[in-house]
Amino acid sequence: MSLKAIFFDIDDTLFSTTDFAAKARKAAVESMRKHGLRLPTDHILRELQEVIAEFSSNHEHHFDKLLLRLPRRSFDGVNPAILVAAGVQAYHDAKFQHLRPYPEVPPVLAKLTRTDLVRGIITAGLEVKQADKLLRLGLYEHFTPTAIFISDQIGISKPNSKLFQRACDEVGVEPKETMYVGDHPTHDIDPANALGMVTVHVRRGRHAPEQGRTKASHELKNFKELLTVLRKDFNVRA
Amino acid sequence: MSLKAIFFDIDDTLFSTTDFAAKARKAAVESMRKHGLRLPTDHILRELQEVIAEFSSNHEHHFDKLLLRLPRRSFDGVNPAILVAAGVQAYHDAKFQHLRPYPEVPPVLAKLTRTDLVRGIITAGLEVKQADKLLRLGLYEHFTPTAIFISDQIGISKPNSKLFQRACDEVGVEPKETMYVGDHPTHDIDPANALGMVTVHVRRGRHAPEQGRTKASHELKNFKELLTVLRKDFNVRA
Repeated sequence: MSLKAIFFDIDDTLFSTTDFAAKARKAAVESMRKHGLRLPTDHILRELQEVIAEFSSNHEHHFDKLLLRLPRRSFDGVNPAILVAAGVQAYHDAKFQHLRPYPEVPPVLAKLTRTDLVRGIITAGLEVKQADKLLRLGLYEHFTPTAIFISDQIGISKPNSKLFQRACDEVGVEPKETMYVGDHPTHDIDPANALGMVTVHVRRGRHAPEQGRTKASHELKNFKELLTVLRKDFNVRA
Repeated sequence: MSLKAIFFDIDDTLFSTTDFAAKARKAAVESMRKHGLRLPTDHILRELQEVIAEFSSNHEHHFDKLLLRLPRRSFDGVNPAILVAAGVQAYHDAKFQHLRPYPEVPPVLAKLTRTDLVRGIITAGLEVKQADKLLRLGLYEHFTPTAIFISDQIGISKPNSKLFQRACDEVGVEPKETMYVGDHPTHDIDPANALGMVTVHVRRGRHAPEQGRTKASHELKNFKELLTVLRKDFNVRA
């Protein structure tokens, strides 16, 4: 069988979203404490976790919400805008320090650029936030610029398989000649399987132990194994 | 006459907003060009300038608006989210590199911390954006934490003198025993004069040539002269 395109998920597939978020949130909370929020780090982190769970990770005002939940006396005498700015700043600064791809990802993607494969992204999330990750991770240059698909730009989100179909249509390939690489059993593997795409399940991050309704065509723990799959099953020599 | 408090404006008073904005916008446009926006830098900068003039400098989606105005063919084949993220990133990164106080500002403020004066801020703008500037400039530590007043947190903005009155009330000082240091003839000096505050006009930035309805008590070009005014007129030895 011949393969024409390969699409990737971003979060917990190209980098550890889970690790990054933990480090960035910790840095934000430490910075808020340094600027006058007088509560234990663990307490604040737990509240922040709840904010994110209740308002979604894409809500734009997590730190404002966080302060609303905390007793006013815990930051008496400090302007809350200073605390929010301190948290946001530390979170953003953590992007420089901690937003890094899994180490095997850049060399594998670099090798794929030497093949005829269309190399794309199918990701769910806010458009600029997802684009920001690709750029900060230093991975954007490895992808085909016309093959970046972000749910918020399309009006269809995971786990709807129409998102994957739309990506194939736009690029001009059939699902069966397209590979999808993702970490999420029900948001990545199941919908891509439903279309007949070749699926590669990266067992990493917080969804690693979960099971979907269907099994992926391939399962791997290290990104390097992708090159073996491509060579053995599709005669793609990257 | 005895002086109890001194309030400062932020923009073009503690740092050159004008210079910073020019550098950050240039960096953003260069980054968008690097990522596939095919128009001359000057052309894009002019459009961006117009967006900011038309939608205000505090609008949150300048780069999205910018792309809406530019011909689609100038970024054909590139996902607009990548261009927006590239612009936003470069703008934010410029904060690390270029957001610096005027060089004489930190030593003068550091000296003021050794006096009994309440040292505050009265600024117009978005709360987190203005707080972010104070932190990034490294100046926050020099101020009295309870004396930071940002128009968006108060519901009153410049040039309404009620904003200045409110700051005095909160801190528990009379306007006549309070100094205000700002660059803007009609947004800083006139309303502070109207309350009978001691006013110091810093003639810097894009408002430097403008005239207000009233004259400031003192006019200076270099922040260091502030120490002289404080010593001579108010017997404050910083």
